[in-house]
Amino acid sequence: MALTLGAILYEGFELLDMFGPLEMFTALPPDQLKVVMVAEKSGPVTAGSMSNAPCPSVIADYDFESAPPLDIILLPGGVGTIPALENDNLLNFLKTRAVDAQITASVCSGSAILARAGLLDGRRATSNKMFFSLASSQSDKVEWAERARWVDAGDFVTSSGVSAGIDMALAIIARLFGQSVADQIAEGAEYSWHRNADEDPFVDQLNKLSNSL
Amino acid sequence: MALTLGAILYEGFELLDMFGPLEMFTALPPDQLKVVMVAEKSGPVTAGSMSNAPCPSVIADYDFESAPPLDIILLPGGVGTIPALENDNLLNFLKTRAVDAQITASVCSGSAILARAGLLDGRRATSNKMFFSLASSQSDKVEWAERARWVDAGDFVTSSGVSAGIDMALAIIARLFGQSVADQIAEGAEYSWHRNADEDPFVDQLNKLSNSL
Repeated sequence: MALTLGAILYEGFELLDMFGPLEMFTALPPDQLKVVMVAEKSGPVTAGSMSNAPCPSVIADYDFESAPPLDIILLPGGVGTIPALENDNLLNFLKTRAVDAQITASVCSGSAILARAGLLDGRRATSNKMFFSLASSQSDKVEWAERARWVDAGDFVTSSGVSAGIDMALAIIARLFGQSVADQIAEGAEYSWHRNADEDPFVDQLNKLSNSL
Repeated sequence: MALTLGAILYEGFELLDMFGPLEMFTALPPDQLKVVMVAEKSGPVTAGSMSNAPCPSVIADYDFESAPPLDIILLPGGVGTIPALENDNLLNFLKTRAVDAQITASVCSGSAILARAGLLDGRRATSNKMFFSLASSQSDKVEWAERARWVDAGDFVTSSGVSAGIDMALAIIARLFGQSVADQIAEGAEYSWHRNADEDPFVDQLNKLSNSL
């Protein structure tokens, strides 16, 4: 039976946080994995950018109540993370659904939301470099890894900023479906996969805000 | 005045072909560049995958008639390329609008559509590795480059498969807004930019179809 991956949309999510991983996950045949788009309310959800540029809208097929059982949860980051930290419906949805999911995965500042929900307590996790302190300030019970492309803590997998989500997605695919499947998907997308979770070329950017953009 | 980038959606477009470049372009402040989503008809347009997996839908803000003047046109590839080659409305839109655009850029098999429209004749261009022959069979008046991450032919810029579109987008940003702006955007997205257009790690995959996915 196919696994179901729920991609969680919220206003101001970061485009590549979502669609980098989904490019890799949708390369799997639908009898192995099915992607569903979920948000607090079904219908269009607009992405965001740190530059405040207008961004595309993506359609959520399910709201939190109607979403099917999820084997994998994919939570992006983005400028919308900050208001999302105060969204009890989102936090409760994640708390409830993560219990039954095989893997709950976040990209970028998405781990700040998971940490706020208390879901990363007692686990090792990472976040994006530009606002690392946003995540780490949500819980001091998390073993925050500053130098990590992604961290696989078993039921929770967290990645560093934006494009690191692609590498994490391939690692999850390798774990669930085999290394050769992940290799083939990366190759098909002509993507030079960063295969080492601990190799982090961007660690020097820690908490460096982008001021001139 | 801000440049306007028109991202062209069609049924079965490839997710990362579109949202890799748009991640980079939407990092520019909106007083420098504005992204608009355009399709034959406004409203939801569904992405596609070679695996036939169900994919997300994205909203086109404008149809071909209502689209504003476009300084940059971004055309993705994907499984939808094959029916798109027969879509005269799309081909005519591209032919008409490319004349006034500063840059018309394609990702992956999007260059097959540009070639079919005759827009690449007399120019150097590239395409994705997995279906290179799909593009090259559209016109023998194009100087098809098999070994290229992307090809900058001035008014037309074409990239190789899927993730190569991100590198091409950064190169276009560097050309239009300066190298340091592009560097900063890549760094903010924690993206290891392939900066050399001629360095192509995937050339050995030429026309190798993915059979087992």
